[in-house]
Amino acid sequence: MAKIAQIIIGDELLSGKIQDLNLKWLADFILPTGFKLNSSEIIGDDEEQIIATLDQTLKNNDAIIVTGGLGPTKDDKTKSVLANFLGVDLEESQEAIEVVSQHYERFDKTWTKENNSYHFLPKGVTPLNNPQGLAPGLMAEVNGKLIFCTPGVPREFQKMTEEVVYPILSTRLKSEATQLEIFNIRTVGIPEEKIFHEICPGLWEQLEEYGSVSSLPHTMSVDITLRLSKDNQLENKKKKILEILRSTPIWESIWQIGNIPLPQYIVEKAKEKNLTIAFAESCTGGLASSKVTDVSGSSSVFMGGVVTYSNDSKINLLGVKEETISSDGAVSANVAYEMANGARIKLDADIAISFTGIAGPGGGTEKKPVGTVGIGWSTASETKSKIYNFRGDRLKLKERFMTKGLFKLLRIIEDMPSH
Amino acid sequence: MAKIAQIIIGDELLSGKIQDLNLKWLADFILPTGFKLNSSEIIGDDEEQIIATLDQTLKNNDAIIVTGGLGPTKDDKTKSVLANFLGVDLEESQEAIEVVSQHYERFDKTWTKENNSYHFLPKGVTPLNNPQGLAPGLMAEVNGKLIFCTPGVPREFQKMTEEVVYPILSTRLKSEATQLEIFNIRTVGIPEEKIFHEICPGLWEQLEEYGSVSSLPHTMSVDITLRLSKDNQLENKKKKILEILRSTPIWESIWQIGNIPLPQYIVEKAKEKNLTIAFAESCTGGLASSKVTDVSGSSSVFMGGVVTYSNDSKINLLGVKEETISSDGAVSANVAYEMANGARIKLDADIAISFTGIAGPGGGTEKKPVGTVGIGWSTASETKSKIYNFRGDRLKLKERFMTKGLFKLLRIIEDMPSH
Repeated sequence: MAKIAQIIIGDELLSGKIQDLNLKWLADFILPTGFKLNSSEIIGDDEEQIIATLDQTLKNNDAIIVTGGLGPTKDDKTKSVLANFLGVDLEESQEAIEVVSQHYERFDKTWTKENNSYHFLPKGVTPLNNPQGLAPGLMAEVNGKLIFCTPGVPREFQKMTEEVVYPILSTRLKSEATQLEIFNIRTVGIPEEKIFHEICPGLWEQLEEYGSVSSLPHTMSVDITLRLSKDNQLENKKKKILEILRSTPIWESIWQIGNIPLPQYIVEKAKEKNLTIAFAESCTGGLASSKVTDVSGSSSVFMGGVVTYSNDSKINLLGVKEETISSDGAVSANVAYEMANGARIKLDADIAISFTGIAGPGGGTEKKPVGTVGIGWSTASETKSKIYNFRGDRLKLKERFMTKGLFKLLRIIEDMPSH
Repeated sequence: MAKIAQIIIGDELLSGKIQDLNLKWLADFILPTGFKLNSSEIIGDDEEQIIATLDQTLKNNDAIIVTGGLGPTKDDKTKSVLANFLGVDLEESQEAIEVVSQHYERFDKTWTKENNSYHFLPKGVTPLNNPQGLAPGLMAEVNGKLIFCTPGVPREFQKMTEEVVYPILSTRLKSEATQLEIFNIRTVGIPEEKIFHEICPGLWEQLEEYGSVSSLPHTMSVDITLRLSKDNQLENKKKKILEILRSTPIWESIWQIGNIPLPQYIVEKAKEKNLTIAFAESCTGGLASSKVTDVSGSSSVFMGGVVTYSNDSKINLLGVKEETISSDGAVSANVAYEMANGARIKLDADIAISFTGIAGPGGGTEKKPVGTVGIGWSTASETKSKIYNFRGDRLKLKERFMTKGLFKLLRIIEDMPSH
């Protein structure tokens, strides 16, 4: 299997200014291709370190994708460092001038030599089309191995990798490697340790007979992932894996065979049944609505939401009774009940979920500590609510509250008849 | 400056299953300590690769923090690999038994040898307290250099690094390094290239006289960051930098000297002036509300929001006129106007911002393509709205729409008198 390594250059990543997004994207992209993403190293804008890392990484891999440091400012050093690494000079390149001019034309601009030094390239290096940006990419060859330099801006990096780098890679490193299929089993509600040590001891070993196994905990759920080689036994293997799972107690906790994010899965299931949904959010502050509306096509099932952070807004927008808030408190099963019922009616949805809780760090009491949340659910036939308790900081709690509510919503959708 | 490297172990990162969060956190944490985060490498759960990487990384650094692979499942190999790297056996450790027993007690559980093999350690390795989890961390010493093994779960990793690893590091690698202060200048509305090539040529060089300079584009804004050594000239240097900036056209575009995220900055400014805010969101789907409620203490300024994804909800919850929607369309300046005005009144806020647009991928027309957004703003004295156009995919567009509205909100807060 041809090995590919990524080197991400940028002081801004090592100083914590930004979250790298290119590794995960590249990992997702490479996985089904049959190439192996062997490592991803993030280093600073330091010439000596870049050269040492290129040197070391090239030894263990067939190709390197360098990300970042191609921009117009002075801390973007990739090009001159690559020249030093290759032991060549930077020189004006007619090919680069053509590529850069096209890039500028695409944005209705004209490039001139005064704009920047995009037309200088290390001698012998090929400029690459940048479908989304202005700075060209680079390709160099060292002893039959390939070095690609790509921009660090995620959308530029991604388009160039997809449309320019990958076609070259797949031609040059004609991989005979086995294609893999990712078989993902998503469980909910049981911690990773409990699954493999208490509930299903021996399951891991049983699954390992079909392919490599890994498990990964998410908020409230655990993914068990198998990589199955795509041979003529593939469908048979999948069937056997499902049989094994069906014979264990974990079967009841599996909510999806696949790798679809929970909000998207909910939108798809609601669409299948022609059901509409709405949220009444206090402590989650719009997070549930935002996650569902991240999904393309959510507008056909999502009617809307209300973020009622103040007591007045709970009363005015959702019809929560003032007495309920004053007798039970805003974080209570009864307020959650009235919020869910109110949201369903006001937003004219088939199902509404409500969240009212304490995400902290302030606002907790002995009886209702930070992490307490009331979650309500309402349909035309039934409205209910319940108090739950979670641990975590403010952002974690928002996520846990939301996830609990979304799993509740999924269950309701699955239990309801089509509309 | 003592150099620290991070090695993150996990096939799940290289296969794209999850986004790494530990690098950015560690980078943030290390930056002001005077240590240098020299590199961060992500590699797979492969014994040979882990050992080669440990070997190579140890050469160039004073300490290594290994993250991940400490859990109870079979793909968690760090411990046995460390034993092989050190050339020692795994053996039962009384010290480990004590640490693990305490971890379990903290969760009101009792640990026994049947639970897992947490009590086996490579010979000579010290177990480390895990303040948030069950698996102990590890510390090994090789030729005076330190290797720490920490869990991969972010909250466990972070607590262990803060409370256990860092105190050891700072004692053992007593750094005489210069402490640095990050001086961050945040501009809005002008692309990075334009700032340094068109509007302020020569600015970069002028700033470089005071410390190392870097620049980083965000959605609609650019950060110019200087690292200033913390000497007795620090305040003087800051004053001079501000004088330089004041003499350039970029001065007008600076919205913050500091490093506070925009939603938090808005909450702080609104709090100072005792102003309350509300949102009416269509295309942003709750994102603006969610980002503002991510901020601790936002409940004192944020009254709430309405996510009106359907036309009916715009009419019923915000009082948008049916005629306006049918004559102008839901994505229009007039609907944005009525949404902002309605949200301000219904949510009883001093300022309301509205968003109605087309985030795509569907729903665009020739006159109103994907990326079109109407943003409205309303105070007691004035309500206005405007149409903007952006590029990007669905998630980028949601973020751009929101950011545009939040910068508008910030400007309004800054221009308004205290309440």
